[in-house]
Amino acid sequence: MTSRPHRYRALAQALAEDLRAGRFPAGSRLPSVRQLCETHRASLATVTHALHELEDAGLIEARARQGFFARATPAPGPLPTGGVALALEARRERLMALAASRPDWLSLGHLALPPALLPLAALRRLTTQALQQDAALLGQGSVAGSEALRGQIARRAPRMGCAFAPEDLVVVQGESEALQLCLQLVARPGDVVAVASPAPLRALELMACLGLEVLEIPPQGGRQRWPAALARALRTRRVAACVIESGAGRVDGAGLDDADHQALAALLARHALPLIECDMMGELYRGAYRPRPLKAFDADDRVLYCGSFACTAGPGLGLGYVASRRYGLRLRAARAVQGELLPALADRVLARFMAGEGYERHLRRLRKQLALQLRAYEQAVLRHFPAGTRLQVGEVGYALWVELPAGLDALALLARAREQGYSFVPGAVFSTGTAFDHCLRLSARHPLDEAHRRGIEVLGALACTLASTVACVNTAVAAPCGPRRAGRERKLATVRGSETAGC
Amino acid sequence: MTSRPHRYRALAQALAEDLRAGRFPAGSRLPSVRQLCETHRASLATVTHALHELEDAGLIEARARQGFFARATPAPGPLPTGGVALALEARRERLMALAASRPDWLSLGHLALPPALLPLAALRRLTTQALQQDAALLGQGSVAGSEALRGQIARRAPRMGCAFAPEDLVVVQGESEALQLCLQLVARPGDVVAVASPAPLRALELMACLGLEVLEIPPQGGRQRWPAALARALRTRRVAACVIESGAGRVDGAGLDDADHQALAALLARHALPLIECDMMGELYRGAYRPRPLKAFDADDRVLYCGSFACTAGPGLGLGYVASRRYGLRLRAARAVQGELLPALADRVLARFMAGEGYERHLRRLRKQLALQLRAYEQAVLRHFPAGTRLQVGEVGYALWVELPAGLDALALLARAREQGYSFVPGAVFSTGTAFDHCLRLSARHPLDEAHRRGIEVLGALACTLASTVACVNTAVAAPCGPRRAGRERKLATVRGSETAGC
Repeated sequence: MTSRPHRYRALAQALAEDLRAGRFPAGSRLPSVRQLCETHRASLATVTHALHELEDAGLIEARARQGFFARATPAPGPLPTGGVALALEARRERLMALAASRPDWLSLGHLALPPALLPLAALRRLTTQALQQDAALLGQGSVAGSEALRGQIARRAPRMGCAFAPEDLVVVQGESEALQLCLQLVARPGDVVAVASPAPLRALELMACLGLEVLEIPPQGGRQRWPAALARALRTRRVAACVIESGAGRVDGAGLDDADHQALAALLARHALPLIECDMMGELYRGAYRPRPLKAFDADDRVLYCGSFACTAGPGLGLGYVASRRYGLRLRAARAVQGELLPALADRVLARFMAGEGYERHLRRLRKQLALQLRAYEQAVLRHFPAGTRLQVGEVGYALWVELPAGLDALALLARAREQGYSFVPGAVFSTGTAFDHCLRLSARHPLDEAHRRGIEVLGALACTLASTVACVNTAVAAPCGPRRAGRERKLATVRGSETAGC
Repeated sequence: MTSRPHRYRALAQALAEDLRAGRFPAGSRLPSVRQLCETHRASLATVTHALHELEDAGLIEARARQGFFARATPAPGPLPTGGVALALEARRERLMALAASRPDWLSLGHLALPPALLPLAALRRLTTQALQQDAALLGQGSVAGSEALRGQIARRAPRMGCAFAPEDLVVVQGESEALQLCLQLVARPGDVVAVASPAPLRALELMACLGLEVLEIPPQGGRQRWPAALARALRTRRVAACVIESGAGRVDGAGLDDADHQALAALLARHALPLIECDMMGELYRGAYRPRPLKAFDADDRVLYCGSFACTAGPGLGLGYVASRRYGLRLRAARAVQGELLPALADRVLARFMAGEGYERHLRRLRKQLALQLRAYEQAVLRHFPAGTRLQVGEVGYALWVELPAGLDALALLARAREQGYSFVPGAVFSTGTAFDHCLRLSARHPLDEAHRRGIEVLGALACTLASTVACVNTAVAAPCGPRRAGRERKLATVRGSETAGC
């Protein structure tokens, strides 16, 4: 998000290493702030901030009017200090910073829909009506959603090949809470959770916080499908649970088909393995029918299916839900203790909206509009990005997964894009490793107006510059870079799937 | 954390569910171990282990040379016991069940305010106005709250002796999210967190989920104050962070005073120890002024102060916030990744409500009404509960902390109360140990109408019956139990503080 934290953090880490290595013995005075500024070519603010970090971590202590002193016993502490913890911490904070945008940047990667695409008139009418009928709605809340809302969710389930009973549904505040409640139920700190990679930063971050070990299982392309890769992993690792984005909704478009779903469901049943399926974009399909999620194949009831309305009805009614007969009661009990009451007004408005014809009409319009926008972005990316770029979009949603040609670093691209006032979501945040450092996620949430077209053009030009630099460094002959030629040579793989988190 | 458990645990769980669902009727023989191995593709060791778990849990019994048989009465609890992890799990689930109520019970312990006490007319007017002015509010959200709302929160801070800059504030979805974001920031899985005991189940449960070790530090009554007890603990334990309910808002009323606050703030500064202070009820004071939280003494900025509007404006606007200069940026970054967007409509309505005079007028009325109700409940408890009962209420809020006479088990009382259609929150859920098993929390959220008065009467009578039973068992001479006599002999300690969670 900001560039500053990294600077001070890096400095804090360097100083922590010095302390640990005994370069400042216990009780000795550290160099003055001014000296540190000079030595490390850092600003006063950076040095002060870094020193406070070390103080927080118990590594040094401040003495009034004397400066900072190395502490005798590095106290353990929350913010730690060198080594693995700090490295991990630093990486996590770096990823969070990478995933963020700033109001003065034009974000080309985030997924929150603009108000223009949301059914505002209908929602306003329903809200006003509900308040007229029952002002007490503003003062009421429920633990797991009203019967009316759960009934509406259940009513729509057959459209995706599922059968939910209202009592198997737990309404939650959104995707984040859904994922958290499910993870807490099926895994304990220290457990290994298998995750379909690339995975949303939100999920990875949450698992880190819950003390879970993430086992990323990447898509194996045509050679080996995901269920087979999971089966192989299960032979050697003790896995407590799995997390996948719904087959059709994978960020990289490389989703699961019905055969995969069947194989995966059988595998889960065989191992009595719970799986959390996040399906945030399922309603935003482009084909004739809504693709079926894994849950539709889950005869053994091992799948905790998580849905959300944030991407269809907007953040104002951003409720979500979890569907699971096996875990429903326990989810509800956990929510009763840990969750906030769900606002009755949003619940009522959403239930009424879903009960009428307006919801389906809105979805039809939204699907059509997003499909148009997505196509425009696809074409713009193809036109402007360097040769060898690979582009994937899923069967659902409006995200574009861009793989830069080998050797290109999306993080370097991001740094340059930000200088010019643009941001996107780098592939690096979808993994705990570096497998997707050459990837980026773009979003077609906005119509491709002049500003956004210009943004894609700038990204493409920057990527071309990077490509030619890489080519020079490699002293290889790169394909000449430029809109026209690049456009002809590029591969396009329009696969199913697109990223769902951060919506 | 656990080594083997997953495979056998999953199998045990599946079998337990089969038993519960009646697929193996009571008295019937289970499939042979060999058959189970085949059906579940599990090893002999896994199946045997799973069966022993079920046997431990009382769900099945082994008969020599005959195999395993379903038992007549399946033991309660979703998960079979056996092993520490499962025992803890079972305990946690049991506590959650104990904390819950049912719609057909009259809850005498929960804190959610009834609509009649909430400012519904004002909120409705503001909501309608906001929607008329800007329907797009329904489609917008923010990561950390609008500037307007943060400005209003900051504007009120001096009333409690604090100075918050709007940029140090992060608005969140409620107390639960506030606590979670803070804990994730200051502690890692495996860390020890010191908690002022009794502590809300919500916090204990969250810490268990995050893999944190809870170090409960009980109130030491008059002899040793909490800061001293914490200081002692710090000498022997590595503590990553602390969690307290705000001094005035402790569930048992045994809160901290200004001297404690000063001592505690100094201790935190000395150890560079972060502390999460939850102050949900602070606005609902009964004295002339709002009591100052620890944050007011926190010159070193070690305290992450968590506030909420759920107890004053209701669940419809149930937003909360965290105030911390030191951690503000990092909290916001974490929320950007993990949190849901905060609905702009609720944000706008709350900010407008706080900006006008209506908010203060509402608070004045609410404080007065709750004080009246609390007094009525106090008198009813004193009248009906057995001699030796100790009653505490805090300086703020509307909870009553009832300590039954020694030897009386509040869980036994709860079981009997539920049979008669009443529930309360047992003290057992406020600890990971058994220190508060003789306590209960009641709530004065409702006026003491006929139904509620009858409820207190029934609880009191049941407690008296329990007391006489205990007395008989002990063959000691108990003070005769009954409304009049008991009323005269009871101790009353009206201390500061009352429980804030579950609001």
